[in-house]
Amino acid sequence: MNKSIVFHYLSKAMIIGAALLLAPAAVSLYYSETETALTFLFVAVCVALFFTPLAVLKPKNKQIYAKEGLVIVALMWILYPAVGALPFYISGEIPHFVDALFESVSGFTTTGSSILSDVEALSRGMLFWRSFTHWIGGMGVLVLVIAILPSSSNALPLMQAECSGPKVGKIVPKGKLSAVYLYIIYGFITAVTIILLLIGDMPLYDSVCHAFGVVGTGGFSIKNTGIAFYNSAYIEGVLTGAVLACGVNFSLYYYLLIRRFKEVFKNTELRVYFGIVAVATALIAVNIYPIYESAGKSFRYAIFEVATILTSTGFTLQDFCTWPVFSQTLIIVMMFIGACAGSTGGGFKVQRVVVMFKSAGKNINKILHPKSVNVVKSEEKAMDVKVVHGIHNYLIIYVFLWFISLLLVSLNNIGFQENFSAVTSCFNNIGPGLGRIGPTSNFGLFSDLSKSVLMVDMLLGRLEIFPILILFSPSVWRKSI
Amino acid sequence: MNKSIVFHYLSKAMIIGAALLLAPAAVSLYYSETETALTFLFVAVCVALFFTPLAVLKPKNKQIYAKEGLVIVALMWILYPAVGALPFYISGEIPHFVDALFESVSGFTTTGSSILSDVEALSRGMLFWRSFTHWIGGMGVLVLVIAILPSSSNALPLMQAECSGPKVGKIVPKGKLSAVYLYIIYGFITAVTIILLLIGDMPLYDSVCHAFGVVGTGGFSIKNTGIAFYNSAYIEGVLTGAVLACGVNFSLYYYLLIRRFKEVFKNTELRVYFGIVAVATALIAVNIYPIYESAGKSFRYAIFEVATILTSTGFTLQDFCTWPVFSQTLIIVMMFIGACAGSTGGGFKVQRVVVMFKSAGKNINKILHPKSVNVVKSEEKAMDVKVVHGIHNYLIIYVFLWFISLLLVSLNNIGFQENFSAVTSCFNNIGPGLGRIGPTSNFGLFSDLSKSVLMVDMLLGRLEIFPILILFSPSVWRKSI
Repeated sequence: MNKSIVFHYLSKAMIIGAALLLAPAAVSLYYSETETALTFLFVAVCVALFFTPLAVLKPKNKQIYAKEGLVIVALMWILYPAVGALPFYISGEIPHFVDALFESVSGFTTTGSSILSDVEALSRGMLFWRSFTHWIGGMGVLVLVIAILPSSSNALPLMQAECSGPKVGKIVPKGKLSAVYLYIIYGFITAVTIILLLIGDMPLYDSVCHAFGVVGTGGFSIKNTGIAFYNSAYIEGVLTGAVLACGVNFSLYYYLLIRRFKEVFKNTELRVYFGIVAVATALIAVNIYPIYESAGKSFRYAIFEVATILTSTGFTLQDFCTWPVFSQTLIIVMMFIGACAGSTGGGFKVQRVVVMFKSAGKNINKILHPKSVNVVKSEEKAMDVKVVHGIHNYLIIYVFLWFISLLLVSLNNIGFQENFSAVTSCFNNIGPGLGRIGPTSNFGLFSDLSKSVLMVDMLLGRLEIFPILILFSPSVWRKSI
Repeated sequence: MNKSIVFHYLSKAMIIGAALLLAPAAVSLYYSETETALTFLFVAVCVALFFTPLAVLKPKNKQIYAKEGLVIVALMWILYPAVGALPFYISGEIPHFVDALFESVSGFTTTGSSILSDVEALSRGMLFWRSFTHWIGGMGVLVLVIAILPSSSNALPLMQAECSGPKVGKIVPKGKLSAVYLYIIYGFITAVTIILLLIGDMPLYDSVCHAFGVVGTGGFSIKNTGIAFYNSAYIEGVLTGAVLACGVNFSLYYYLLIRRFKEVFKNTELRVYFGIVAVATALIAVNIYPIYESAGKSFRYAIFEVATILTSTGFTLQDFCTWPVFSQTLIIVMMFIGACAGSTGGGFKVQRVVVMFKSAGKNINKILHPKSVNVVKSEEKAMDVKVVHGIHNYLIIYVFLWFISLLLVSLNNIGFQENFSAVTSCFNNIGPGLGRIGPTSNFGLFSDLSKSVLMVDMLLGRLEIFPILILFSPSVWRKSI
């Protein structure tokens, strides 16, 4: 492996990370939280001082292959949350380091699971930082780095390693340009969400923090009661629409920009995605009607929950743990499905589910008609059998790691339902679970071991397994020529 | 589809089914339960009278392809449990028909889940029949039919449709001879188990019933407290050994008979199977040690539970719902894995798990070394990529149907843990679940809808999905030329 390029990229990314810490520092200063501001500045300066010497060194060999891409992404995604946890810990606002790290990993991976029982006790700067990590992690740390750094001819393997879905999310042939476009779209949706929330009389600070949670499909709120605090159908509507928009493949927005409307409207994944939203909303609305005894409320709560769960955001509005078991089970199923490939959402991704269905259907057809030709198509093009095979293997590894995580977390001896939903929620970057880790509770009851396993699950989910897995491959660390 | 051969086979199979009902009739007479005996005779005569005219008709076309094989197996596996439920229902011993059908499907599919809260209230003849269904279903209804009927040149597609595992369980090229050998081995293990149980002072009636439960890896007991009733480490040991023996691929016993020892000892699936038993036993024994405070007892209960769950038998000894969550979770994981392919056990099968692992490993290797050649091998031979692909698709369909079942059962509004474990237990033909459907409880609390879904799951699990699924394909029922 080309280690020099790995260190070079990592160092540059960390310096950008240090710069990002200036935002919460500014917010803290604005709210006269001087001590908090100093904490952010201290961490930023330390990180910058440590990594600048490494970043100045020019790597001998600039070639990046898939392996280097995966390793850079994995290490960056470990370093960013580690540094991100320092302000929580140093300020003493989250005094236990594992908890601080959990909150930071949960933020960057846009999971939104929290160990805090009283969110509102945090300083405003710290709460801003907590939500800001969602925004940074949503589109991707590396995509940001690529967008900012001077043009690099070989950015594609890096983006491939960080973007979600079975095929790479490049929208234009050049990696850097793709990254810039992605961040422009991302910034635009963020701005629109903030404006719409402001119109609904949400304070600016709250609007910005929630917009970060929305577009990153993270789900951290700054209120103990979550979105229910605002008690506004308008705000719920804005958030529902915004998270659904962020669960769509971002390359479709690029197609909209360049007026290739046909590609958007014919997109199978998009249709299935909205199909799932419609069906799940209808089912849950009917199922919870006896509780609210109002068709309007049932629909409003159902669509909010479907949108926030399917897109892996996980905002709190109603406590779905009080809903019938059918609705809870449907919520769990949606956690596994997830949003569209190439979006900021997590989960298994609608596209993979679609391809798996088609592949399984072809298989049944083959049993009935052994001589038939069975090619899996995606967006009207025949799919490379290797891509289909890759998706299958992804499912296998996913299921395997999910089971291992469940076993490890169960050592904690908390209930089966809690363990099951915690692993599912973290692996798919959702946020809340069922039972004692439901929307009105938090993950504080887990042991440090369980929290650590869940943190690894969040990273596995956000990076779609392989980058993290490959860190454990000896061939990566062997001395290379 | 060649419908005449389908009806021909079905009719013959049902006549054999009628003959099988004479066994519990004889047992009833022996215990002077005249009314019960008459019930069995009545059902047997009705079935024989109905199907004999159909069986006499010679089919014009004797050709059986894969499609016909699957349809015959599926219909036979619906008719057998339906007829098998009649004695329970007509005698009034299980007065609700859905319950009677549930008990019968659970018996034939060797699941062993029960709706009875007081097993001992049943007549001896009825209890015998209940256990006998395990024996019939264990090796397979059709394998029995093939073994009994005059030589048929095209028995292989039928066996392929009924035997478990990704590759067909033929041990000699001729289907009929394979079926005969399989039943000889099956009968031999049954006889040995009965003798060993008799040595342990278990009464003959009990020994026979339990032996049926063992070799079919079913799990029905004839005591309310299950195996705990006998309170004998010897009996537990015999049962542990016997179920483990029945979880092995039966073709390996054939290899033992013809002295091809090398093939047995080099068998990867066998090694992995016993490896899982050893590791799981050790983990559970350590985990439950604080409860029993005796290394001997912990080991004894652990290995019994591991053997009975992994082989999908599901006998009751200790109430594992009182064990730590880790042990319960491990039990759930083992339910999914299941026994070896070509055994009487259920679950996903060790062989499939092994192939999936290898395939996923190769996939990771391919990412790291794009130019490497990656062929999945099984028992030292390169596996056809179509077989690997077939296993992948099996996993997809399995996961999909599992989720659908979970959603349907959750309409019942019983707890998540109960629903999850009920579907898992029934789909993998195990028996007990967790929580309120644990070893000391029963499935009586579920609604008729849930029971029906679980029955379909049992059939899907026993027949490995495709035969049942294909019944719903319109092309099967279309008028053929």
